[in-house]
Amino acid sequence: MKENPKKTRHTPAPKTSAPPRRYYKKRTPAPPQREHQAEIADETAVVKSHYTRNNRKSAVRIIPLGGLNEIGKNMTVFECSNDMFILDCGLSFPDSDMPGVDIVIPEFSYVVRHKDRLRGIVITHGHEDHIGGLAYLMKKLNVAVPIYATRLTAGLIEGKFSEHNLPTRNLNVVAPRKTVKMGCMAVEFIKVNHSIPDSVGMAIHTPSGVIIHTGDFKVDFTPIDGSIIDLARFGELGNKGVLALMSESTNAERPGYTHSEKTVGESFDKLFRKAEGKRIIIATFSSNIHRVQQIIDCAIKYNRKVAVFGRSMVNVMNTAIELGYLKVPDNIIIDIEMMDEYASEKIVLITTGSQGEPMSALTRMALNDHKKVSITPMDFIIISATPIPGNEKYVTRVVNELMKSGAEVVYEAMYEVHVSGHACQEELKLMISLTKPKFFIPIHGEFKHLKKHADLALQMGIPKENIFLADIGNVIETDGTKMGIVSQVPAGRTLVDGLGVGDVGSIVLRDRKHLAQDGLIVIVIGIERTTNTVVSGPDIISRGFVYVRESEALMNESKSLLVKTLRNCSGAELREWTALKGKLRDTLSEQIYQQTKRSPMILPIIMEV
Amino acid sequence: MKENPKKTRHTPAPKTSAPPRRYYKKRTPAPPQREHQAEIADETAVVKSHYTRNNRKSAVRIIPLGGLNEIGKNMTVFECSNDMFILDCGLSFPDSDMPGVDIVIPEFSYVVRHKDRLRGIVITHGHEDHIGGLAYLMKKLNVAVPIYATRLTAGLIEGKFSEHNLPTRNLNVVAPRKTVKMGCMAVEFIKVNHSIPDSVGMAIHTPSGVIIHTGDFKVDFTPIDGSIIDLARFGELGNKGVLALMSESTNAERPGYTHSEKTVGESFDKLFRKAEGKRIIIATFSSNIHRVQQIIDCAIKYNRKVAVFGRSMVNVMNTAIELGYLKVPDNIIIDIEMMDEYASEKIVLITTGSQGEPMSALTRMALNDHKKVSITPMDFIIISATPIPGNEKYVTRVVNELMKSGAEVVYEAMYEVHVSGHACQEELKLMISLTKPKFFIPIHGEFKHLKKHADLALQMGIPKENIFLADIGNVIETDGTKMGIVSQVPAGRTLVDGLGVGDVGSIVLRDRKHLAQDGLIVIVIGIERTTNTVVSGPDIISRGFVYVRESEALMNESKSLLVKTLRNCSGAELREWTALKGKLRDTLSEQIYQQTKRSPMILPIIMEV
Repeated sequence: MKENPKKTRHTPAPKTSAPPRRYYKKRTPAPPQREHQAEIADETAVVKSHYTRNNRKSAVRIIPLGGLNEIGKNMTVFECSNDMFILDCGLSFPDSDMPGVDIVIPEFSYVVRHKDRLRGIVITHGHEDHIGGLAYLMKKLNVAVPIYATRLTAGLIEGKFSEHNLPTRNLNVVAPRKTVKMGCMAVEFIKVNHSIPDSVGMAIHTPSGVIIHTGDFKVDFTPIDGSIIDLARFGELGNKGVLALMSESTNAERPGYTHSEKTVGESFDKLFRKAEGKRIIIATFSSNIHRVQQIIDCAIKYNRKVAVFGRSMVNVMNTAIELGYLKVPDNIIIDIEMMDEYASEKIVLITTGSQGEPMSALTRMALNDHKKVSITPMDFIIISATPIPGNEKYVTRVVNELMKSGAEVVYEAMYEVHVSGHACQEELKLMISLTKPKFFIPIHGEFKHLKKHADLALQMGIPKENIFLADIGNVIETDGTKMGIVSQVPAGRTLVDGLGVGDVGSIVLRDRKHLAQDGLIVIVIGIERTTNTVVSGPDIISRGFVYVRESEALMNESKSLLVKTLRNCSGAELREWTALKGKLRDTLSEQIYQQTKRSPMILPIIMEV
Repeated sequence: MKENPKKTRHTPAPKTSAPPRRYYKKRTPAPPQREHQAEIADETAVVKSHYTRNNRKSAVRIIPLGGLNEIGKNMTVFECSNDMFILDCGLSFPDSDMPGVDIVIPEFSYVVRHKDRLRGIVITHGHEDHIGGLAYLMKKLNVAVPIYATRLTAGLIEGKFSEHNLPTRNLNVVAPRKTVKMGCMAVEFIKVNHSIPDSVGMAIHTPSGVIIHTGDFKVDFTPIDGSIIDLARFGELGNKGVLALMSESTNAERPGYTHSEKTVGESFDKLFRKAEGKRIIIATFSSNIHRVQQIIDCAIKYNRKVAVFGRSMVNVMNTAIELGYLKVPDNIIIDIEMMDEYASEKIVLITTGSQGEPMSALTRMALNDHKKVSITPMDFIIISATPIPGNEKYVTRVVNELMKSGAEVVYEAMYEVHVSGHACQEELKLMISLTKPKFFIPIHGEFKHLKKHADLALQMGIPKENIFLADIGNVIETDGTKMGIVSQVPAGRTLVDGLGVGDVGSIVLRDRKHLAQDGLIVIVIGIERTTNTVVSGPDIISRGFVYVRESEALMNESKSLLVKTLRNCSGAELREWTALKGKLRDTLSEQIYQQTKRSPMILPIIMEV
C-alpha cells in the first residue's frame, strides 16, 4: 500500500459559494497550555491567521481510521501540510466471531508513525465508541498530546485515564463555539443534541475550506438542559460556504424525526403514576444523564428516594453531579444500605443492565443473584433502552426472568420509554440543507447506512461525483475545488483481550472458534530418540468433544486406531515427527468424522524420552 | 419428580355452556391403515363413540414437552385413561451458549417410557419447529406409530424420513374437518392460515370436553390459495362448549392484525416494475410456498424465467409442485445451467439465505463466492423475510456486501416485502372470542409472550384462576370442571451435534465455551515410574491463547515456572499425579492470569515412561 502519493495537486480555484476572504497577519502564539485549560482562541482570528502563514491553500487529507462500514471505534485523522490532528478515538464491541475478545480498537500504526505531525486530539462526546480507544492510543503514542473536549466529555476521559494510570494534564476543556488551533487548521466546537450531554460537532477550518464533522447528533427542540443544537451556526457556516460535510448515518434508514428526550420523561410520569404502591426499578445507559435527570425529577415529584446500582452508573452520576450536569437535591439519593429504612413504594432504583449484560446489576436481580435486591410482584420495572443489535437475546432473557418473578416489566416494545440519540432522515436532510456542502461524506455506519445517507444527499441535489462512500484507511484529499480518494494507509482492528492489545489475531481466533465448535483431542506419545521406538502411549485426552464416560467405545476405537497406525510405521517414519504428527491427526480425524460427523481439533504431541 | 400422582379426581360436573349430548353405540372399527391413507372417520361419529365406550368422563392430562418459555421445539402430549398421543415434535436452533450444536430437540424420555400407551402423533404443519424432532423421536421409540398430517405436511415429513432412512408407511394424510381416533380421544383437524400451506389447528375431543390447540396460525381473509382459516368451525365448537384453548403466542406483543400474505404480492408487483431492465433475486423461506407462488405469478406477468437456488428451496418446491400446492406453468422454471441463454433482465432467481445463513446461496453470492451468480449493479435484490432474533447481524452483513457490489437491495426495513405468519393481538382475541374456552393455556412463546397473551385473555373475561402459565414437563390435568398442574415429568432439551444425539451436555458445553474464551495450554511431562523422576518436559503447547511467535517471553516464563515447580517437588509429590497435575495447573494459571488477565484452559498431561 502506498501512502499519500500526492499524485494530483490541483490548483485551488475560488469557490463560487464562499464570500471573498481577506488575509490577516499571523497571530501571536497562544500561551502554553495548562491542565484542563484549553488553548481557546477567537475562532475567526485563528482561522484567518493560517491563511497568512501559509499564503496559499494547502490540500487537506481526511483519513477515517474507524466508523465507516462498521458501527463503533470512530476515529478520523485530518492532515494539512505538516499538521495532523485526530477527531475521536473510540472502541467497538466484539462480534460473535471474536470469542474471548473484550474490546476492539482502531489500528493506530499510521498515527504512531507520524506522531511528530500530531498537533492534538479533539473529541465530540463521551460515549465509548468515541473515547474508548483513547487510553490505548496514549500508551501507544507515548508522547504528551493535547486532548480537547467539552467539560463533561473531559471529565469522563479523566475517569478512564485514571483507571489506566495515565496522566490527565493534557486534557483541555473547550466550550461550544470556541476554536482550537491545530497547526494550519483550526477546529471549532459546535453544540449538538445527543443521548449524552455536552456533545459537539466540529467545523474544521482549513486552508482549502471548512469541513464539518457532525459527531453523533440529533435535533431536539425540547432538550432537557434547554440547549438546542446550534442550527444557526451550522447555517451560518453553510452560508459562508462549506467545503465538505461528514455526517453521521446511524439512523439513515429511518424516515421522519427522532423524538425528543422529553417524550421519555412524559412516559416516565405516566408510569410513575401507574406504579403507585410498588417499588420502581429503571435500567438505562449510565451515560444518558438527561434520562437519569428525568428519573430523578419524577422521583422528586412522586416523593420517592433514589438508590443507584451498577459501577458505571455510580461513576458517571458522580462525575455528572460534580460537574453540574445532573441536578440532584439533597436527600434524594440514598445509600443502598439504607433502602430498608424506606417503604418499597417510596423508592426508585436506577441501575445498569439495560442491554441484558450478563454481569450487570439488572441481570443479577433477574436471575435472583443480587445481594441487595430481590424481585417480587411488588416491583415495577422499566427498561429504558433499545437492545443494540446482537443483544436482543440477552435483553429478552432478562425480561422473561423478571416477569417470572411476578414483576410488571415495561420494555421498549410497549411504551415510549426510550428514544434514539441519532438523527433520522428528516434531521439528516436538515443538516445537509443548512450546511449546503460541496462534498458529502457519510460517516458512522455500516455500508447500508452510508449508502442510504448518500441517497438522501443525492436527492437533495448534491452531485453523485461529490459524494464519497469511503472506507477506513482511505486518504480523501481535497484542495477546495476537487476531492478524491488518492491513496490508502494501514487501517483495521486491534483486538484487546485482558491485558493483551493486539496479541489475539486471526490464527488465535480461528483456533478458538474451532475449539468452540467441536472441542479438542490431544494425542500423546513418547518416542525414544536413539532407537526410534514408541515407549509410551498413545494416550488420548479430550475436552469439549463428547461426554467421555458415555463414549468409551468411541475413545477406545480411536486409541486402537492410533496403536495400529503407529505399529505400521517404519523406523524412518518414526523419525520424521512432523510427518508422523500429520499422519496421526489425519487418520484419527477421518475415523472420528465418519463416526460422529464432527471435526475436533486434534493435537498430536510427541515427547522425546 | 413425581409422575402423575393423580392426587385429585374431580367428579365431572355437567358443563353449563355445552348443549346436551346424546350417546350412540360403538362404531365399527376403521379398516386397517394403508400407507398415506389416514384412518379417517366422520368426526361426530368418532367423538360420540368413545363416550359410549367409556361411559364416564376420564380426566385428561396435557403435558407440554416443548414450546413453552422458549421459541421452537414444540411438542405436547395428551393423555386420557390408558391412551396417549403426541401433537407436533419440533426442533429449535441452538443459542450462542451452545457452540457446535446443530439442533435442539425435546427430551423424549417420558414418551419413550410410556410408548405402550402411544396411539399416534398428529402434526399441525410442516415447519421445522413442529416436525424437525420427529425423525429423532421415531428412532428413539423404535416402534411403528401412526403419524397423521395434512397432505403437504406429510410430504415434507416423508422427505425428512427418507434422509434419515426411516420408513414412511406409518404416515397418514388427513384432510381438514376430518378426525382421527386416539383411543378414548379424537383429534379433529381444522384449517388455519399460516406461512406454510396446509396448516391446521386441532380440536381434541375428550371425555372431559373439547380442547382446542391452534398450532401456529394467523387470520388471512385473502390467502393465496383462497382457503381462509375455518373460523366457522372454531365458532361452532365454541358454541357447543370448549373446555380449554391452547393458543399460540408468538406475536402476542404486537397490537393489531397481521397483514395478509397478498400485501407481499402487491409489493412484489411494484418492485418488479421498478426493477425493469435488471435481474431480480429474491430470497425467502423455502417453506413459504405462497410467497414463492407470488414470485412465480409476478415472473409470468413480467415475462421472466425463474431459476431456483439452494438445496432446501429446490426440495420444498419440488414437493409442493408434485402435491399441487405450487402452480407453475411449463417453461417458467429454467435450469440454472441455462441461465446464460436468457438476458439477465428476463430472469428472477429464487434463493434461500434470507436469514444470512453463512453457507446459503445468497450469502455466497454476497461474498462473491457463488459459482453461478456474480452480483453487479444490474441486480435488484429482495430479501423477503424478517431476521429471526439472533440472525440480525448475519442478515446485515449480507445486505452490506450485496450493496457494496452496487446492487439495489430491498430489505424488510424499507418495504412491505414480508408479513408474519402469526396472529397479532386482535386475531388472538378473535380466537378467544370464537372458542369461548373455560380454561386458557397460552403456548408457543417465551414467558413474556405467554404472559402478554394471558393478559389478553384476562381482559376478555377469562378468570385469572382459569388461565395457566405452564412450563414444559408440567402435567396439566382436567376433568372437565377443574384444571390444575398436578405434577411434573422429565422435560428439557437434547442437543444434536453431528451424528451424536444427547452426547453433548453441560460439561462438554462448559469446556467448549472455556476453550473459545481464552484458548488452551497443554503441559506435558514424562515421569519415570520406578524412580519418580521427570525424564522429559515440561513442554508447553498452546492453541487459541496468544500468537506464540510474538509471545515467546511469556511462553518461556511459563516454562521456567513449571521447571521450578517440578524441581521443588518431593519424590512423594511426583508420585501423586492427580495432586501434581493440580499443582502445575494452579501455579501456571495464576502466573498467566497476572500477566495477561486471561484464564486459558490448562491441561497437564503426565506420561508414564
